[in-house]
Amino acid sequence: MPHIDVDENLPGIRSLMAFSPETATPMGKLANLMLRSNEGLTMAEREMIATYVSNLNDCFYCQQSHGAIVTCYLNDDNELISQVNKNYEHADISDKMKALLSIAGSVQKGGKYVTQQQIDDARNANATDREIHDTVLIAAMFCMFNRYVDGLAANTPTDLSSYPLRAKQIAEHGYGNYIFTTDQPTQ
Amino acid sequence: MPHIDVDENLPGIRSLMAFSPETATPMGKLANLMLRSNEGLTMAEREMIATYVSNLNDCFYCQQSHGAIVTCYLNDDNELISQVNKNYEHADISDKMKALLSIAGSVQKGGKYVTQQQIDDARNANATDREIHDTVLIAAMFCMFNRYVDGLAANTPTDLSSYPLRAKQIAEHGYGNYIFTTDQPTQ
Repeated sequence: MPHIDVDENLPGIRSLMAFSPETATPMGKLANLMLRSNEGLTMAEREMIATYVSNLNDCFYCQQSHGAIVTCYLNDDNELISQVNKNYEHADISDKMKALLSIAGSVQKGGKYVTQQQIDDARNANATDREIHDTVLIAAMFCMFNRYVDGLAANTPTDLSSYPLRAKQIAEHGYGNYIFTTDQPTQ
Repeated sequence: MPHIDVDENLPGIRSLMAFSPETATPMGKLANLMLRSNEGLTMAEREMIATYVSNLNDCFYCQQSHGAIVTCYLNDDNELISQVNKNYEHADISDKMKALLSIAGSVQKGGKYVTQQQIDDARNANATDREIHDTVLIAAMFCMFNRYVDGLAANTPTDLSSYPLRAKQIAEHGYGNYIFTTDQPTQ
């Protein structure tokens, strides 16, 4: 049961955003800016970082939500994100993404865990300043989102079939306009 | 040395916000909404939560910056925030703030560390839903800001005399307009 009185018809962060719509707006904008861009990292790669960090933070709602978005972008039946969550070193992703996920994993523990060696490895795999910046910020953002959701014990749907529907809606329309509503995608 | 090529004249998060002004805007708005309000929690109490979490995350820049803002609001020569960082249980703060700092400390570890007992204690000390919400969100936000700063190894002034000047500027004008500039306060 959530720690505060929120709309029980809304799952996860959406119930908190409805409780506090004024803070939901900049959070939605931050999510759109960092997750809905193909500049440098693709949208699927950005969501992969978000899912990986949410998995490390053991945030069921966020890892299911964002994992479903990766799957929606890649149209791959959950295969790649499962590999990444299990052991990204053996996943079918680029060396650059492996180096960036290593950085994201350190950020999840704390900013000071990121080493110069990890940055050098990312650069040797052709990561740009922008890609390193975005990796660190996405990882840091999900250390916020995950704590916001679980720190207030927001409702988390355990029925896994609900996540792909919402993922399709986000993949088509982005965050922001659709994040607070109970509307279902029209399919 | 910062991990990416940022303006070395700007300290801490301000160098990162200048590197990525588009994401700086919603982050500044979130900071203003959560830290520049006296609704429920006072601005000093909000900055106290931010400082305490930054201290737990060992983020020197953020704990010095926000600690200086607490001191500026309270006009007390660092006394109260030093007590809070050392052991808030013995600090000269309300029972409600002690209960909320306990929640903030759990959020810093991870959202799931917040217990029903901590929530009950906060309610017994007359904390409202809004105050519990804001405590969790401020703590979660600083788990993001701290990681953003240290994950990219942003420059951190070790000269402690620079922080009160900036604190005065923030106390007078808020976050947002002044966060990216190198302008000094007029006095």
